[in-house]
Amino acid sequence: MENNKRYESGLHTMEELFSPEVRAGMEEMKKISPDFWQMIVSTGFGDIYSRDTLSLSQREIITLTTLITQGAFDQLKVHLQAALNVGLTKEEIIEIIIHCAGYVGFPKAVQAMGIAGEIFKETEEI
Amino acid sequence: MENNKRYESGLHTMEELFSPEVRAGMEEMKKISPDFWQMIVSTGFGDIYSRDTLSLSQREIITLTTLITQGAFDQLKVHLQAALNVGLTKEEIIEIIIHCAGYVGFPKAVQAMGIAGEIFKETEEI
Amino acid sequence: MENNKRYESGLHTMEELFSPEVRAGMEEMKKISPDFWQMIVSTGFGDIYSRDTLSLSQREIITLTTLITQGAFDQLKVHLQAALNVGLTKEEIIEIIIHCAGYVGFPKAVQAMGIAGEIFKETEEI
Amino acid sequence: MENNKRYESGLHTMEELFSPEVRAGMEEMKKISPDFWQMIVSTGFGDIYSRDTLSLSQREIITLTTLITQGAFDQLKVHLQAALNVGLTKEEIIEIIIHCAGYVGFPKAVQAMGIAGEIFKETEEI
Amino acid sequence: MENNKRYESGLHTMEELFSPEVRAGMEEMKKISPDFWQMIVSTGFGDIYSRDTLSLSQREIITLTTLITQGAFDQLKVHLQAALNVGLTKEEIIEIIIHCAGYVGFPKAVQAMGIAGEIFKETEEI
Amino acid sequence: MENNKRYESGLHTMEELFSPEVRAGMEEMKKISPDFWQMIVSTGFGDIYSRDTLSLSQREIITLTTLITQGAFDQLKVHLQAALNVGLTKEEIIEIIIHCAGYVGFPKAVQAMGIAGEIFKETEEI
Repeated sequence: MENNKRYESGLHTMEELFSPEVRAGMEEMKKISPDFWQMIVSTGFGDIYSRDTLSLSQREIITLTTLITQGAFDQLKVHLQAALNVGLTKEEIIEIIIHCAGYVGFPKAVQAMGIAGEIFKETEEI
Repeated sequence: MENNKRYESGLHTMEELFSPEVRAGMEEMKKISPDFWQMIVSTGFGDIYSRDTLSLSQREIITLTTLITQGAFDQLKVHLQAALNVGLTKEEIIEIIIHCAGYVGFPKAVQAMGIAGEIFKETEEI
Repeated sequence: MENNKRYESGLHTMEELFSPEVRAGMEEMKKISPDFWQMIVSTGFGDIYSRDTLSLSQREIITLTTLITQGAFDQLKVHLQAALNVGLTKEEIIEIIIHCAGYVGFPKAVQAMGIAGEIFKETEEI
Repeated sequence: MENNKRYESGLHTMEELFSPEVRAGMEEMKKISPDFWQMIVSTGFGDIYSRDTLSLSQREIITLTTLITQGAFDQLKVHLQAALNVGLTKEEIIEIIIHCAGYVGFPKAVQAMGIAGEIFKETEEI
Repeated sequence: MENNKRYESGLHTMEELFSPEVRAGMEEMKKISPDFWQMIVSTGFGDIYSRDTLSLSQREIITLTTLITQGAFDQLKVHLQAALNVGLTKEEIIEIIIHCAGYVGFPKAVQAMGIAGEIFKETEEI
Repeated sequence: MENNKRYESGLHTMEELFSPEVRAGMEEMKKISPDFWQMIVSTGFGDIYSRDTLSLSQREIITLTTLITQGAFDQLKVHLQAALNVGLTKEEIIEIIIHCAGYVGFPKAVQAMGIAGEIFKETEEI
């Protein structure tokens, strides 16, 4: 029961963050490991993202920063979209990357900015 | 001239972020490398922190996150104080670390939370 | 209810891994953030360490390796003790570090071996 | 002579770990730097993998963990195959990745699980 | 004015390091964020690369090493070309990677050597 | 026999890099794991540092850079001394750290510069 609540709450937060297409892609994980899927939804999005105290747009500032810092550029794409979905502007996202440049160096910041450029372009084309 | 402006602007932002004691400690860098000190102030705090678009408290969310992610725990102390100085609450800082746990794993989050606990204690004692 | 089970199961696994002194030290976290303590026990030790398929000694091989790779040397001490507690031998621990040397380079392996040396010494003295 | 032994022993261990196709691909390194190839075989697989105390399947638990932790996803593919070759099951590999999630965060664990899913699929198709 | 000098000096150093094609590719950044482009040229190549005390070939030894260590393989390609442009030989580049193997482990060194092999091949074909 | 040569050559190179006190400290490793000590000397200093193509001062540029990039500040101290021993000047070491700032960000560069300052001071006092 309570676990159901954690899972439900995670699914609900994922709907605010990601488009149906992105969520469908994420659900592919279910086929490889249903347990890990459960953990992603219940722990990652239920226990963590659904908490109060920080807004979803503040949470995406954190997420973008940690992904850039650890060089997790595959996950960055999906969270750049999420950041736009929960209300961060293009200008704010660019500014996050510029701030990161001083903290992680140019190579990761340059790569992140290139990916942001692609996502911005895709968004405009829609 | 313009370089003076970058430096002045950096110094000004450092006053908003750090206590006089912390700034005095940072200035020790001058003795090792005056050029590097110049770069920290003009580039780090002048070119980057002094920019618009993000507030200083948003910038400290980014800074705390990248420091936790890269395991830069020595710098974390000073920026936990800065975060409090520019208006982030203890509850928000704890929440940033909890969010990071899902992105960088427990070891770094646990270490960050321990350091935050020390800083909170010091702050209360004053 | 179910959350209670996750927590109980986490506490139980922690008893197998850590000495009462180490657990008392860990519980200090409760004072800084009761929510984060809950998450460490329920998610870290309940959801993850308490699962089947891998034994606790296999899990400690993974834990030691990831801590060495990410340079999390503060957490390494406690897990070197845990590794001994769940049945890994000194020879196996040394061998894990030697294997890591080829994958993460000498600096981190040398630091890990130095810490292992200290823990082995403390263990013998008891 | 002794260096020959180290090299021979390395080649022998590589045969236990990798398919002929994979080994042929690895040998391409010879053309870029014969010295580095020598070092990979003699040091990596001769001095390290061929040692006693840990089995090859225990060594692959270490290798998978360090590759996931450092985000070395290109090398991960080849070692997921090696892990299966020396007797780790799909269930155990999934479990290693789930354990890692708590130690390195979701992004790297998600990426690793996706790659594992591909390798499992390829293996079934053969 | 002085900022113009920093920018001019950065552009000048970029001409010594990179081919016109590479520089044209880099300038794409201007379209995403003109401010970040300014920072790359003025800070990265003006303030840093244009300084005395170390030659450009010594600077590329540092750059290659840090890129390999942080696994920034996308940026590595462009700096392998730059390293050749400022006078490092193929043998020296191979030697840098071999030295790095002992410090960052085999996975990153193997990946770097593979990329170096590709760049060497392209260079010969011209 | 040949292994003896690798070991002898490693010891010889260590004498060029490190003071007798530093080497005595390093030899403590023998007591924890004689095999790992053998590997450090034969592989690290014999196979790698003793190779031609790059000078010892070029090798220390690489070593300092990789240690700063991976945040291995304990090992940094000993290699700052080694760098001075094989002929790098204080000015060149400061310059390496400034170059790194652009590639790894300010936090690691600041920490490295602080440690360099300490080592320079100790050296002057002798």
